[in-house]
Amino acid sequence: MSRPAAHALLDVLHDWGVDRLFTCPGSTEAAVLDALVHRKDVEPVLTTHEGVAVSMADGLARITREPSVAYLHANVGLTNGLSHLYAAQLGYSPVVLLNGLKPSSIQAREGFTTGRRMRDLVHQYVKSDWQSLSSAAVPEDVNRAVRTAVTEPAGPVWVGIGQELLENDEPVPVPEAARFRFDSRTAPTAGPIRAAADLLVTAQRPVIVAGNEIARVRAVEQLVALSEQLGLPVLHEDRRGFERPGFPTDHPHFRGQYSPDHPLVRDADLLVFLGARLFNEFEPARVPPLPDGVPVVHGHGDARHIAMIHGVDVALVGDQGLVIAALAGALADQAPRTVPPAAPAPARTPSGGAVLRPGEVVDVLTESLRGSTLIGDATTAGGILQQRAHQASGDDYLVSTSGSLGWGMGAALGVAMGMPGRRVAAVLGDGVFQFGLPALWSAARSGLPVTYVVLNNGGYAAVGSALQRFGGDALASGVYPGVDISGPRIADIATGFGVPGRRVTTLPELRDALADSAGVDHPTLVEVMTEPTEFSPS
Amino acid sequence: MSRPAAHALLDVLHDWGVDRLFTCPGSTEAAVLDALVHRKDVEPVLTTHEGVAVSMADGLARITREPSVAYLHANVGLTNGLSHLYAAQLGYSPVVLLNGLKPSSIQAREGFTTGRRMRDLVHQYVKSDWQSLSSAAVPEDVNRAVRTAVTEPAGPVWVGIGQELLENDEPVPVPEAARFRFDSRTAPTAGPIRAAADLLVTAQRPVIVAGNEIARVRAVEQLVALSEQLGLPVLHEDRRGFERPGFPTDHPHFRGQYSPDHPLVRDADLLVFLGARLFNEFEPARVPPLPDGVPVVHGHGDARHIAMIHGVDVALVGDQGLVIAALAGALADQAPRTVPPAAPAPARTPSGGAVLRPGEVVDVLTESLRGSTLIGDATTAGGILQQRAHQASGDDYLVSTSGSLGWGMGAALGVAMGMPGRRVAAVLGDGVFQFGLPALWSAARSGLPVTYVVLNNGGYAAVGSALQRFGGDALASGVYPGVDISGPRIADIATGFGVPGRRVTTLPELRDALADSAGVDHPTLVEVMTEPTEFSPS
Repeated sequence: MSRPAAHALLDVLHDWGVDRLFTCPGSTEAAVLDALVHRKDVEPVLTTHEGVAVSMADGLARITREPSVAYLHANVGLTNGLSHLYAAQLGYSPVVLLNGLKPSSIQAREGFTTGRRMRDLVHQYVKSDWQSLSSAAVPEDVNRAVRTAVTEPAGPVWVGIGQELLENDEPVPVPEAARFRFDSRTAPTAGPIRAAADLLVTAQRPVIVAGNEIARVRAVEQLVALSEQLGLPVLHEDRRGFERPGFPTDHPHFRGQYSPDHPLVRDADLLVFLGARLFNEFEPARVPPLPDGVPVVHGHGDARHIAMIHGVDVALVGDQGLVIAALAGALADQAPRTVPPAAPAPARTPSGGAVLRPGEVVDVLTESLRGSTLIGDATTAGGILQQRAHQASGDDYLVSTSGSLGWGMGAALGVAMGMPGRRVAAVLGDGVFQFGLPALWSAARSGLPVTYVVLNNGGYAAVGSALQRFGGDALASGVYPGVDISGPRIADIATGFGVPGRRVTTLPELRDALADSAGVDHPTLVEVMTEPTEFSPS
Repeated sequence: MSRPAAHALLDVLHDWGVDRLFTCPGSTEAAVLDALVHRKDVEPVLTTHEGVAVSMADGLARITREPSVAYLHANVGLTNGLSHLYAAQLGYSPVVLLNGLKPSSIQAREGFTTGRRMRDLVHQYVKSDWQSLSSAAVPEDVNRAVRTAVTEPAGPVWVGIGQELLENDEPVPVPEAARFRFDSRTAPTAGPIRAAADLLVTAQRPVIVAGNEIARVRAVEQLVALSEQLGLPVLHEDRRGFERPGFPTDHPHFRGQYSPDHPLVRDADLLVFLGARLFNEFEPARVPPLPDGVPVVHGHGDARHIAMIHGVDVALVGDQGLVIAALAGALADQAPRTVPPAAPAPARTPSGGAVLRPGEVVDVLTESLRGSTLIGDATTAGGILQQRAHQASGDDYLVSTSGSLGWGMGAALGVAMGMPGRRVAAVLGDGVFQFGLPALWSAARSGLPVTYVVLNNGGYAAVGSALQRFGGDALASGVYPGVDISGPRIADIATGFGVPGRRVTTLPELRDALADSAGVDHPTLVEVMTEPTEFSPS
């Protein structure tokens, strides 16, 4: 088949199952927009900032595990999308980033919104970066980009496309996507599986640590079965690496998050990390993150993460679902161990103070939003939310380890698009809110019933916390530069965008607001005023 | 002198006259923030988005012509600042970008918010990019960065600084900035000056085109004197290259903006471009941008722009103030020519329609804001604003040619900081507004009496205009994908940020709102509802 390049591009995407094009366009994208006028098979999803386009595409790709496309404009649009492209990369999210570039003569002449090194901007964030060299190459390049994005380990890919290549009416060949899609999962060889199984047989107190990859490759139920078969306790991967739950928090074998001072870890004689990072370090470790002398089995779909920092005893490279299946087979004759009892959960009661503390707010959120998919994008309160939120499946809680603030506001919309009928709520900090603001426009336009909850402590608590750890003049004087961002009336700003907002200052008001937002057919926002001086909620 | 690195860094900056640090910090910047607790000589200016930090620093640097510093956080913060870094580059703005990086062990291990190729992200936007390798090197590296940024042609410089380098208490040497500051202006040799003067003597109908550089190097009054000495008409550089006025629009020799179909250009037998770009192309030219066979003299402070696209007869590389002085000297004996009379200005009257048209709004703005410094950041209405705004000095109108939307919202604040007592107004599109939103927080916090005017046509008119030029299905059907961004109540959103907003729908309301905002001691915003279907106002 041959078609004009702009149509051929859309044909290829549709052939891969892509039915939405997230974009914040400019004049360079005219031909593609024009090609969308009469098509019903690909819907342009307009956004008002590239960060929103990328994070929406990412959210949709994460939840569907299908390729998702963001079409950005020129060099300035691309740079605006980079911080969330990094998030997509860390999440192994098959986001295809198409980038409209000025006509080649304008590029050569350093004209308006051109860059000399466009690929430098994306190179470290993508699996492949390429600028199409002819109209005929566009559909092939885009087809290859999608194929590369979905091939395991999945991840973002960038294609730059000059304006004149798409404004060319000449028919160009359209590749048949089906012939480029293949099962790219791989499994370890028999040796490492046998070695891991042997360690699991001989160890007395093995602990499994379930990482993001388990949820990403949809192996949570398989891991539940393995933990039941072997009678082993399971932890989530540690806070800094955690992006989604690899094990149900309500399963009797679940024992919390990995930490070197977790009693099970201190007591373990074998640690089996499946699909986790070892580790995504935030700062140099004060405590060795792995207990000394305990054998480590480490499985991951991306060999880059294995033996990256710490040596391992057995590496299980490949799809973690296949790894679990192989381990289950190799250990079919094992009698299950008895899982040590869980420590009683600490009792938590509301503080009763005049100003809400993050912990009590999080407790109401996890209770009121139980059964929803939560998107976390709250820098300091995010840690306790992650620990306490009910997570029955791998799709119940999503967070990015990128540190790219505002990601959750767009990602929540993409996730909601991928889970029709499911309630989706994004829990945000007030700093985050200002980074993701244009997502409110997309929320209002989409009509998706996403609930945004903003914990407004009026500050960058992470900066306050860092200054406290630094232990210098700020701590001594109580003067914290770079922390106080109070002022905005976040609920009013949301209302101005067409997302009805409500500010609450008490737990009953918060419960009411969350209940009211549950049944509606449009996005809402709840602004929760919290204690401004609690920099490290726990 | 020796001081701990964080203090030494601030000492160097202060020594260069930097008394503000624009920042959106994270934990990597703790040591610098802590060092600011008791210092009175450098003020941390907190922002809530890196784009705001960079554009504020840029605005201040442009108006003061002094170095200005933005301190960004990690890789995600850096990427958020890139689009406006490009603006600073195009404006030859000496913005020093300091970038807090994670400790080196975390960088090596690909930990949280690290990048493998940080310098790739900035390389094409800066004069120099370097990551400090030791605590002792930090003040030297920063000193060199400022020196490089201000050396002509000026421009942004990036320095990456690992967290541990600044958390080190060991005293390190502090360079003495005065010994690194020098007059870096250069002038052409006698030959090109003589050749240009000869062409000016023999030509019958020479035209001078005054570019951004004239305003940047503060040579507007010199150019006025030269045009009076020689009796020559002067044009501003063409719309796509224009960043600030090189000639007063109220001078009797001013004849509008350069365009190949301007009557003076069509009739010219010599074109003398001083400090302009030839050209910043938006799309392939339909009309040759230079009239055939007419000699061209081209002066610029940056040789990169000379003979970049079009050959020239004489090149005048160097400081355009020195160039003008040399030309004035070489032509001291010339009798002035008679400047051809200006064409009468087209009469413009309000349309009287129910919905305001951009042209009539711009006319009220230029009249009501006369005497203010205007910052332009309105994609389609920007062109007519630029043509019609009263510009008595090189500081009366600033716009970026970067296409990085939202730049004007932060730049206006930086400009206002650099011009105490002067009224500053930013004229924005509604699309732009969503890109620059966090600047409203900075506006409210600063208390600077900046007037924001948003022309809200509910759409990306530039995209609509591109679809019309494309002439395909969108034009035929009247369905314009990617254009409609209507919905937000912009005045309400501003009010939510603490910037009192007012929506107006008539010209008298607009005049009243602008009059009311003139005398106040805080920022305000006026949202002007305009015709949504006028994609190409003229």
